[in-house]
Amino acid sequence: MPTVGVVGGGQLARMMQPAAIAMGIVLKVFAEQEGSSAHYATTQVGDYTDFDQLARFAATVDVITFDHEHVPLVLLEKLVATGVKVRPGPTALHFAQNKLAMRSALADLGLPLPIWAAAKTAADIDKFIEANGPEVVVKTPIGGYDGKGVRVIRQASEVSDWLENIEHFGGALLCEQKVPFIRELAQLVSRNPSGELRSWDTVQTVQKDGVCLEVIAPAPGPVDSLGAKEIAKKIARGLEVIGVMAVEMFETTNGELLVNELAMRPHNSGHFSIEGSKTSQFEQHLRAVLDLPLGDTELVGGGSVMVNLLGVDSKNRLVENYAAAMSKFPNLKFHSYQKAPRQGRKMGHITALGQNHLELLAACHEAAELLYQADLRIR
Amino acid sequence: MPTVGVVGGGQLARMMQPAAIAMGIVLKVFAEQEGSSAHYATTQVGDYTDFDQLARFAATVDVITFDHEHVPLVLLEKLVATGVKVRPGPTALHFAQNKLAMRSALADLGLPLPIWAAAKTAADIDKFIEANGPEVVVKTPIGGYDGKGVRVIRQASEVSDWLENIEHFGGALLCEQKVPFIRELAQLVSRNPSGELRSWDTVQTVQKDGVCLEVIAPAPGPVDSLGAKEIAKKIARGLEVIGVMAVEMFETTNGELLVNELAMRPHNSGHFSIEGSKTSQFEQHLRAVLDLPLGDTELVGGGSVMVNLLGVDSKNRLVENYAAAMSKFPNLKFHSYQKAPRQGRKMGHITALGQNHLELLAACHEAAELLYQADLRIR
Repeated sequence: MPTVGVVGGGQLARMMQPAAIAMGIVLKVFAEQEGSSAHYATTQVGDYTDFDQLARFAATVDVITFDHEHVPLVLLEKLVATGVKVRPGPTALHFAQNKLAMRSALADLGLPLPIWAAAKTAADIDKFIEANGPEVVVKTPIGGYDGKGVRVIRQASEVSDWLENIEHFGGALLCEQKVPFIRELAQLVSRNPSGELRSWDTVQTVQKDGVCLEVIAPAPGPVDSLGAKEIAKKIARGLEVIGVMAVEMFETTNGELLVNELAMRPHNSGHFSIEGSKTSQFEQHLRAVLDLPLGDTELVGGGSVMVNLLGVDSKNRLVENYAAAMSKFPNLKFHSYQKAPRQGRKMGHITALGQNHLELLAACHEAAELLYQADLRIR
Repeated sequence: MPTVGVVGGGQLARMMQPAAIAMGIVLKVFAEQEGSSAHYATTQVGDYTDFDQLARFAATVDVITFDHEHVPLVLLEKLVATGVKVRPGPTALHFAQNKLAMRSALADLGLPLPIWAAAKTAADIDKFIEANGPEVVVKTPIGGYDGKGVRVIRQASEVSDWLENIEHFGGALLCEQKVPFIRELAQLVSRNPSGELRSWDTVQTVQKDGVCLEVIAPAPGPVDSLGAKEIAKKIARGLEVIGVMAVEMFETTNGELLVNELAMRPHNSGHFSIEGSKTSQFEQHLRAVLDLPLGDTELVGGGSVMVNLLGVDSKNRLVENYAAAMSKFPNLKFHSYQKAPRQGRKMGHITALGQNHLELLAACHEAAELLYQADLRIR
């Protein structure tokens, strides 16, 4: 029986399980702790930075893939050297783990990027600000996610703490032009080891404080979807990505697309595809890492929107308030990741199918409000 | 956290798990044996005819529901008496377990039925044949499924073995007119304890030797869908059904609908709804037994067809041949129940979305052929 092993027990691993159950593919998860979001599929709990534990897990599956991009490359290279199939492989993951390496590789591929530079000193940063300011973006090349490790600054002193610990971040920081974008787009693509490539429709994403809030599929209005798909395919081929990859992009005032970030795994911008596409990003990722032919990514229902459910406090699990939300909105699909509640944490999401994205977004937000109103909360 | 307990570890319990994972509802399965189709959700393995084991399982969940209808009523009544929520309840399940009781109750509700009678002796049967023959259908009121316990006969001697063991079957057999139908339809409906009712589109089913082969949603051509829904709702209300119920019906030459069989659980005729409806029968069943509001049952993709994958031998798991089928048919959704292969066994199914059901059925059957051709088989 084809068996996929996922390192990491978060919601991405969790959402792979329904696809695995449907197809009759075995999914095993190596989780960081008991009771993780993906606990139903968890077969091993431990430390993914310990090679022996990783190798023991790898021995129980046909292929290793990931819920996150944090496994040290040196361990993955060691796994590959012992004959384990790691997908995406360490060569590709290097670019997902290190934003400077990513920028450099994308520049080599001739892709449209914000103006960028590596900076090792305050002087480097101030020089970049002088050329591209008054405001610029500085990122730690490694270890950032959901807005962490990203600052908009006007002078180098605003990242002096990072500069002092620069060896933690790979020896340099990434400076980027603050792009005057009108909106953010994401392009999801998948690639299998045989080289087959499939893209979903380009979507629009709305972030708040670096966290994804809304996704609209397809991105409304005129959008250079062909261009977005070409960029994503070029990256997938050029960096030898296996599985699902999300490319986050800026759309500038003149409609130009600039690559912002990459994720080499199923991604928040693709959750709409669970109901909104013939093949969800989770099914596609499993197919790709098993080198099975990829599925149709056509939209069903004419389009969809997704709204993230962020935790409101440490008590409200949202699920307890399903009745009110489901009663008012029988057309919405409610997702909960069964995670311990915490303010701002990604607890779940809501998806709505249809073409009127404004109406659907309003419905999702109203439903979310109903979930947030725990009986015991004072608002 | 809302927790549903399912008695029985078959594919119906298995297919409830993706819906439970999506919604963040806890699903626990009491399976007959290790390694059942629903093994990922199995929390207890044992004998569902043993009250103590059932009660132990019930203590771990908020509500008990079923993968099959075989749990002895007396045990369920005992559970209810101790305060356990059993949905559907024993009063309703009685009619699903005993076809004579079902016929009698449906007659009391004034529903359109084939001509029927209870028969205790060969003379009773011969009398029924004389009035309604030359051929009639005889059924064992309890213990039949997938065509088992059903015979088309011309004389009582053809069921003499059943007559000899009539106490095994509740003391009487069910005689039915052999309805001159042009096709079979199924009406899926769901009801929650608050009395909310939702129907899916009426579907056409194609059986072979009593086993479901194909389902087309919605049933093509002119069909008394309103009538079918009215019948199903009347039954759901009249028999106090909770959860999903499937009503199998005959469509006669003049378009009349006659009730054939009932199933008080998700049903093969509703598998299309996993991709083909906004709310699948499995999600709806979980919502209903938890007394949550029911979801929209609107079709997505304009319609769908489902083709069952029956086992071809004791070796071919079908999944091993995915590559050929998925490569030719990226538009199809493949389902495997992870059951040990056996000829004629329901191993999985294929679903296709769209409106041209003839084209889609042909694609599903061709894909099934590709799955059946294991490398080692000589055809």
